[in-house]
Amino acid sequence: MSRWQPNAHGRLEQAALELYVERGFDRTTVAEIAERAGLTERTFYRHYADKREVLFGDGTTLPALLAKAVEEAPESAKPIDAVAAALDSWGVQLQKNRKGTMRRHDIISAHPELWERYLVKRSKLAAAMAEGLRGRGVDEPAATLAAESGMAAFEVAHARWLGAPDSAGLTRYLREAFRELKAVIAGD
Amino acid sequence: MSRWQPNAHGRLEQAALELYVERGFDRTTVAEIAERAGLTERTFYRHYADKREVLFGDGTTLPALLAKAVEEAPESAKPIDAVAAALDSWGVQLQKNRKGTMRRHDIISAHPELWERYLVKRSKLAAAMAEGLRGRGVDEPAATLAAESGMAAFEVAHARWLGAPDSAGLTRYLREAFRELKAVIAGD
Repeated sequence: MSRWQPNAHGRLEQAALELYVERGFDRTTVAEIAERAGLTERTFYRHYADKREVLFGDGTTLPALLAKAVEEAPESAKPIDAVAAALDSWGVQLQKNRKGTMRRHDIISAHPELWERYLVKRSKLAAAMAEGLRGRGVDEPAATLAAESGMAAFEVAHARWLGAPDSAGLTRYLREAFRELKAVIAGD
Repeated sequence: MSRWQPNAHGRLEQAALELYVERGFDRTTVAEIAERAGLTERTFYRHYADKREVLFGDGTTLPALLAKAVEEAPESAKPIDAVAAALDSWGVQLQKNRKGTMRRHDIISAHPELWERYLVKRSKLAAAMAEGLRGRGVDEPAATLAAESGMAAFEVAHARWLGAPDSAGLTRYLREAFRELKAVIAGD
């Protein structure tokens, strides 16, 4: 096998998802994931610490993208709207692979140890968005509060989107969730 | 040793905290915690699944208390204010043991595996408060959004309180954090 492994990340993720659905998360080994991806176990471990991590990207790309999207929202955007815009751009990516997102979600929900890892990921995404807000000159704790509340709205929208019988865009659910967030915090 | 172990929970928690501070979390065993508490290892495992759990209460008392406090907030209280009231009543308890809370916080922050467990706890507390809100007739997703945002405000207040040089009440920091939450979500 050549040392050049184009898109090793994507291939490992795809292979892991397939195997977790076919055999279950518990009964799948790293060796099997690597084999299915046509890569070695060593390559797997160059990219991921364990078979939980493979469901959560590389741990740096998405946080960096979200921080950048927050920072680059229109200058006039209020902090909460900059967060909404960043999450919307992520939503557009997820929308392209609703089936894959759904499978990943089902596997994570069914395994407490994956749920724990998801919560860590969620907390890092919120921290990245708070960093993006501070880059726009937003003070703490406003930055953290906007980022964390925005993540909560994202999660609500994401669950509704996955549960919806039609394939209405995640964007629509995000818009609704942010509207409801504003209403409930304002005490309307 | 008699089968009657008054306040085994509190004794195990106290012993664990002491040992984690003295020797570090990694170098402390369940056997040592049990010994320090004057109890058996078997008793430890009747109360906690592992040495992480002992830092997080029994996993049911606090969620139940918060849910009840939300549900019993004055009828006129808006959802976010019912959440604030419940968290304030928890804050009053924490205030009584600022030093213990601080030690626990330091240990948790220093160990990623404890931080993961904390995030699970936080998520359960938010879920319990959302349940309390639904008991008041608040619909989803407003209930979840108010509970999750409230938890974020609590976390901000808690960190400020622990970091403050004076021993000003957690209640004051909570009030501030909820005020800042309302302002940033409203886009003020």
